[in-house]
Amino acid sequence: MAQAQKITPRAKDFSEWYGDVIAQAQLADYSPVRGCMVIRPHGYRIWELMQRALDDMFRASGHRNAYFPLFIPMSFLAKEAEHVEGFAKEVALVTHTRLRATGKEGAGAIAVDPTSELEEPLVVRPTSETIIYAMFAKWIQSYRDLPLLLNQWCNVVRWELRTRLFLRTTEFLWQEGHTAHADEAGAEQEARLILGIYRRFAEEWMAMPVITGAKTESEKFAGALRTYAIEALMQDNKALQAGTSHNLGQNFAKAFNVQYQTASGGLEYAWNTSWGVSTRLIGGLIMTHSDDNGLVAPPQLAPVQVAIVPIWKTDEERNRLSVVGRQVKADLEKSGLRVEFDDRENMKPGAKYFEWEALGVPVRLEIGPRDLASSQVVLARRSGAKGPVALQSVTGSVTTALDEIQQALFAAARERREKNSIRGTTKGQFLEFMKGGGGFAYGGFCGSPTCEAEIKTQTNATIRVLPDPEFRSKEVPKQCMWCDALSIAEAVWAQAY
Amino acid sequence: MAQAQKITPRAKDFSEWYGDVIAQAQLADYSPVRGCMVIRPHGYRIWELMQRALDDMFRASGHRNAYFPLFIPMSFLAKEAEHVEGFAKEVALVTHTRLRATGKEGAGAIAVDPTSELEEPLVVRPTSETIIYAMFAKWIQSYRDLPLLLNQWCNVVRWELRTRLFLRTTEFLWQEGHTAHADEAGAEQEARLILGIYRRFAEEWMAMPVITGAKTESEKFAGALRTYAIEALMQDNKALQAGTSHNLGQNFAKAFNVQYQTASGGLEYAWNTSWGVSTRLIGGLIMTHSDDNGLVAPPQLAPVQVAIVPIWKTDEERNRLSVVGRQVKADLEKSGLRVEFDDRENMKPGAKYFEWEALGVPVRLEIGPRDLASSQVVLARRSGAKGPVALQSVTGSVTTALDEIQQALFAAARERREKNSIRGTTKGQFLEFMKGGGGFAYGGFCGSPTCEAEIKTQTNATIRVLPDPEFRSKEVPKQCMWCDALSIAEAVWAQAY
Repeated sequence: MAQAQKITPRAKDFSEWYGDVIAQAQLADYSPVRGCMVIRPHGYRIWELMQRALDDMFRASGHRNAYFPLFIPMSFLAKEAEHVEGFAKEVALVTHTRLRATGKEGAGAIAVDPTSELEEPLVVRPTSETIIYAMFAKWIQSYRDLPLLLNQWCNVVRWELRTRLFLRTTEFLWQEGHTAHADEAGAEQEARLILGIYRRFAEEWMAMPVITGAKTESEKFAGALRTYAIEALMQDNKALQAGTSHNLGQNFAKAFNVQYQTASGGLEYAWNTSWGVSTRLIGGLIMTHSDDNGLVAPPQLAPVQVAIVPIWKTDEERNRLSVVGRQVKADLEKSGLRVEFDDRENMKPGAKYFEWEALGVPVRLEIGPRDLASSQVVLARRSGAKGPVALQSVTGSVTTALDEIQQALFAAARERREKNSIRGTTKGQFLEFMKGGGGFAYGGFCGSPTCEAEIKTQTNATIRVLPDPEFRSKEVPKQCMWCDALSIAEAVWAQAY
Repeated sequence: MAQAQKITPRAKDFSEWYGDVIAQAQLADYSPVRGCMVIRPHGYRIWELMQRALDDMFRASGHRNAYFPLFIPMSFLAKEAEHVEGFAKEVALVTHTRLRATGKEGAGAIAVDPTSELEEPLVVRPTSETIIYAMFAKWIQSYRDLPLLLNQWCNVVRWELRTRLFLRTTEFLWQEGHTAHADEAGAEQEARLILGIYRRFAEEWMAMPVITGAKTESEKFAGALRTYAIEALMQDNKALQAGTSHNLGQNFAKAFNVQYQTASGGLEYAWNTSWGVSTRLIGGLIMTHSDDNGLVAPPQLAPVQVAIVPIWKTDEERNRLSVVGRQVKADLEKSGLRVEFDDRENMKPGAKYFEWEALGVPVRLEIGPRDLASSQVVLARRSGAKGPVALQSVTGSVTTALDEIQQALFAAARERREKNSIRGTTKGQFLEFMKGGGGFAYGGFCGSPTCEAEIKTQTNATIRVLPDPEFRSKEVPKQCMWCDALSIAEAVWAQAY
């Protein structure tokens, strides 16, 4: 379990704080393999809860899960020009298939067997468009086979130089959806549908408010026609791209010859979409809600939603409390809640509270002999409030508290985001804003990659999205914030993870 | 959907039949990557149902899921001598991390960038003992940290020369449990507990009877002290090793320095177990139950348990049947069943029946206007029986049918296995049995690897297990079936996948 608390305050060093929260909550650990993490049970449970929620939404909208190979022949990557350019510098390459003994001892005892070299190197998938659309070409013959709506949950590898737990790791877990449609409208609708699902998941499950919109040419996915994204603002005012959905147009269909016969007998290339969210979301969850006492998990995704801590002095008390505590646990679990009963010996209640706090448990129930005498328990929220509730209605009280906490986390995060957003930004304001800690800066954009590049060089900020109507400012900016030329769209800039 | 039927009969060519069943049921497909398969939605759904059932059992017995890296430094493999010897000839090795443009066109446009060579090659995990026990060494300090009971669901890669869908593929999906215990008894108990879970899953979910027992020295896992296995007999009388559970002793703990402080202050090496089942189970499911009409899925794991097929002539009939059919679907789903309502146009009912049969759906409900008039539907079992049931009690009828089908599949498979097992086998009988098609041959074993090797060379049969007491013959064999020396244990031989 967690060690004694030693979490660096956010105000002191946000990055240190982030690492400390992860260590205290035992979410993940560095592995001996450069850039690869180990996801520990408490962190993996969050991922499983995320998977379950997203998977239900994908399934309800007609998607089916499948599994495609980890390896992609090198030549497949080369078939879509922008795609290979985007990934060539960060792929793990399998070149041999055997080890041989060297006759030495210890670490030098084995080496790669040079006679086992592959004719064509294999790429460990950084994303699976190429291998999946090669299969689509085999499966799709007619308009009757469309739309084809698939998703896979898997691991991918991108050889990153600078890594950080959950946010950027050489290997990460994700889902990648891949679909084929008869026309552009079908693909566009799908890309948008998924963006909506991602937003709903971020807001309703993670309690993490996001803005949605399109990426600019320079920020879109390598090989896509258009990329849509959900973007969230972390507590350090840096943006996190939390999910992307791409309308791939016919780029991959042409590269992999995904053609179908139309109802009238013609032959057309299919239109594709791909979309994904990853274990990076766990990093977003942490940086949206957690505090200087450790992880704050939104109730919907908390591995443990309720920790019951009995407080006893004598064995007789302990036994009585144990009966009641376990009954409460059983009742709460009957309502579908995730509950732990913590009657560990040789550990003071205060130490237990500390530990459950660091683990992000939203509600704690304390029961002592006096509570028992008055048929009540003390309900303490991770957020601070604390008070007695009647034993007989404890399930209702807990459920209500969890709902309120979920709502309050979302409201607080949205309020924070809005407080750290500026609109109608001018160049001068922008420079000051980014120097002063940043946030979301809304301003006019001329559409030129030159402006984007200059801004990035000078402030490290990028256009997160050209926001969807709901997020746009009431006053439409008329000029580019940076060069004063005519604005073609409002943009949202931020420094980003 | 499935094409017109073209399944090779089992009697003609079992291996062809196996491939045809998979193709017709759209369970998996070969990929452009040598030895790697694509698991298609219908096949992947079976895997998800298997995962859910097993995961619930692991969790109920105190195990937690985690995730460890895909890559293992080459030097880690070398730390356990038997382990590296067991896997050295079949590992995919990552040696480089970048591609570069060659200036050519098409497939030759990119090549491995030689400047990106890794200092130490990385092994794509063939199994994760080495990387996991390296982490255990970090996490385990004291006896209070024990037992540590983890499991992971992931992909692994073993560079196999001869592959077959589900049964032996270069990449496959599996779960691998890894645990640490304070003493040998703890590890042994765990290895046995898991063997029991595997058996329960095979028999109660897959309806696949298994025998349990220990592997001989020559068949045990590379690095284990003892390996236990569940073994099933397929319809072609070849055995399938369906799951293994290893007591690893202190071998890996010593190699990776997994030590803990005892209650009395001493320092001890931990005892480990590891255990796994894989997508190979899907192959076992197919070869245990399916017939010449295609897949037979046991109800507990059938992706679709009930297919409702309306039979109409007029649009008016179609509309009426649709209302009732969808209501029946909703009612069945309320009881937790997996149901499809198949009102596709331009397809005759008979063609639909064919298709659902090939997909392994255990129960089909047919509804026509006359059924509707008499408030009934026709319940047709995949196994052949067919008759009317009252509409108002259809859920009960379907549930009963599914239960009966599940039981019947298990009983039939067990009967077939027993019919193809011989006991008290002599050398002459054995040679004849193996030439005549094989099965499980029970006989005395002297314990000598020489006998095992000779038998394998001459008959291709191996000792599947030294069976647990429940499976042993009433008459204990006194002599080795092969060399007539004193028998040390009864053994079960078979040709195997």
